[in-house]
Parts: sequence; C-alpha cells; structure tokens
Amino acid sequence: MNQVDFWYEFASTYSYPAAMRIEALATARVVEVVWRPFLLGPLFAELGWRDSPFNIYPGKGRYMWRDMHRVCETLGLPLKPPKPFPQNSLLAARIALALEGEARATFSRAVYLAEFGEGATISERSTMMKILKSSGLDATATLAAAETAANKDKLKAASDTAKSIGLPGAPCLVTPDGEIFWGNDRLEQGLDWAARG
Amino acid sequence: MNQVDFWYEFASTYSYPAAMRIEALATARVVEVVWRPFLLGPLFAELGWRDSPFNIYPGKGRYMWRDMHRVCETLGLPLKPPKPFPQNSLLAARIALALEGEARATFSRAVYLAEFGEGATISERSTMMKILKSSGLDATATLAAAETAANKDKLKAASDTAKSIGLPGAPCLVTPDGEIFWGNDRLEQGLDWAARG
Repeated sequence: MNQVDFWYEFASTYSYPAAMRIEALATARVVEVVWRPFLLGPLFAELGWRDSPFNIYPGKGRYMWRDMHRVCETLGLPLKPPKPFPQNSLLAARIALALEGEARATFSRAVYLAEFGEGATISERSTMMKILKSSGLDATATLAAAETAANKDKLKAASDTAKSIGLPGAPCLVTPDGEIFWGNDRLEQGLDWAARG
Repeated sequence: MNQVDFWYEFASTYSYPAAMRIEALATARVVEVVWRPFLLGPLFAELGWRDSPFNIYPGKGRYMWRDMHRVCETLGLPLKPPKPFPQNSLLAARIALALEGEARATFSRAVYLAEFGEGATISERSTMMKILKSSGLDATATLAAAETAANKDKLKAASDTAKSIGLPGAPCLVTPDGEIFWGNDRLEQGLDWAARG
C-alpha cells in the first residue's frame, strides 16, 4: 500500500482538524498514514521565534483563531482554545512516540480533542494519564516508556529529521518521493499525490 | 447581487492564481468581485519585515515556490519566478487603482501573467505601457492618471484600510459582514460565505 508520513505537533492548531480528518481521507485513497509527532520549537528557535508566530504576530493570531472557528464548525469539531496558547507539547509528543501504530493515532486524536476541543492543559501528567486510560492504554507503563532516555532521544531525532527535510510548519504530509504538503488545507492534495505512488 | 472585496498585492505569489481563478468561481456563485489592490509593504514594516517573509525565512520560501509550481501546474498556469523577488509593485498598484471595474481586473490579470508567468519586471514603465496597450487601454493617459497626487493618496488610503481591517496577508477576500478569508486556498469558502449574503 502507498504510504504517507503525517508530521504533526501537539501545540499546532491546524494539526487538530488534520489529525481528525486524515484517516478517512487516506482510507478512501488506499493510502497508509504513518503518524510522526515532532516538536516545532527547535525549528522556530532557528528562525528567532521563542513563541508561536500566532502570538508574535497578533494579527495573524486573530485571523487564525477566527479561521479555526470556521474550519471546526464546518467539520463539526468542538473548539475551545487552551490557555496558555501554545501548550507545552513535550510530554504528549514523548508519549505518542512511545506508542506504535493505531495506539499512537488513537492517543494523538484524543490529545487534540482534549486540548482544542475542551481547552485541556496537555502538559499535565494527570491529563495524559486520563487520556491514556480513556484510550484503553496502560497509562503507567506508557508514561514510563515515554520518559526513558531512549524515547527522549527518539523525539529529538524526529525533530532533527523534520528540520533536515525542511518542514515549514505543522501539519505536513511528506510522500515517499519527498514532496511536502503543508497545512490542513493540503491533506487532499498530499494524499492524492501519495495515492499515485 | 452579493459582493465580495478581493484584496490583492502584485508582489504576492499566491495572489496570481487567485486573480486568475476568482471570476469564474464568483460567477458560478452569482457574486460580484470588487478588485482592491493594496501594498503589503507598510503592513510588513509594522511586523519588522523589510523584505518578503519568503526571503527572510528561506525554508518557507523554498516550500512556497515548490507549492506554487504544483498549484500552477494543476491550474494550467505558466510559472516563471521574477527576479528579483519580490518585485516592486508600487507602479502597478497605482495604475490598477487609476482604472475602474472590468479594466482594473483585466489589467491586473495581465500584470500577474507577465510577472509570474513570464518573469517580467513590473516596476518598469515600459512593461506597464506594454501591458496597458495589450489590454486595450490608453497607456499614456492611464499612466498619467496613476501618478497624480490624488491617485497616490488613494493607494495609501487603500493600504491604511487593509491595515485597519486587519488583513494578515494577500490575497484576502472580505465579505460585507466583515469575514476575512486569507489565501488562494480560501477563495471557494469566502465566495460561498458571500453568496449566502
């Protein structure tokens, strides 16, 4: 089956609708989605950004939240912006990387729904425990696996890979031939590209 | 008929496919398009940008050009990036504002095709003369009208309006009820919104 890498960041607003939409779109095109969590922070730091560009440039932030409201309304997704924004996504990303396959996808969607649908604080261990449990996963064992040195290194390596590929933001689809499609708006085109093999 | 304001900047890459697509999409929805040229420079200067963000952030620039290539290929539009990029769009914007209605739209599409389809230098008066003539317009009279103090003030006022509305970039659609839709990707949604009245 044709594959596509889905690069996402838990602090990224548009990654939320993308994560909720992608599996149905991929199934319709017989494309397998590889869920690849990473951190935008190191990439942003290289650009001189120590905060979300949506906070650094308030006009873009105002536009993005209004647009997110429309996007979520169209998709029937709840939207309650978390405070503070952006959320610290380190723990959630580590947990996602400690999981594999369908468990990683299920957990990731649950994080997005809690964070942007309910305004939950995803940096808190208690929130992560709750999400792991409600996803039918072993919360204690997964948290322990997430915080091993090897798993922490795995997340660093993922973010290094994202940088070396040249991802301009999140979410991104990357096809096996190296095409990058940035944004929730580009899911269809990226999956169409991947489907052509 | 329902109306929508189409805010565009001649230096903006994604304004090119948007300008080429918008009339057919608007006609299908029985929406009238008001073409509103403006300058992004003053808005960018407020953000501390003295150049296109696609040059300031080379990773975003590389992505944008690759994406533009795909977008134009899908639409059957020629793409030959102008050098330098971005082009100085002041003269073209003044001329566009000196024209009205259909003449403004025809001229604007011709500028985009020359600039991004052929790599023409749109800051040159000779390029503008050629485009005006091939658009069936009085080149000398239009250039004279473009460079009156009143017309220059009109462009300043347009860019001030763009700033006060809070346009995050170009192109943008703005509906009569104040909704902003940013990007070539958002034409359909913006026109759908305008069509609902």
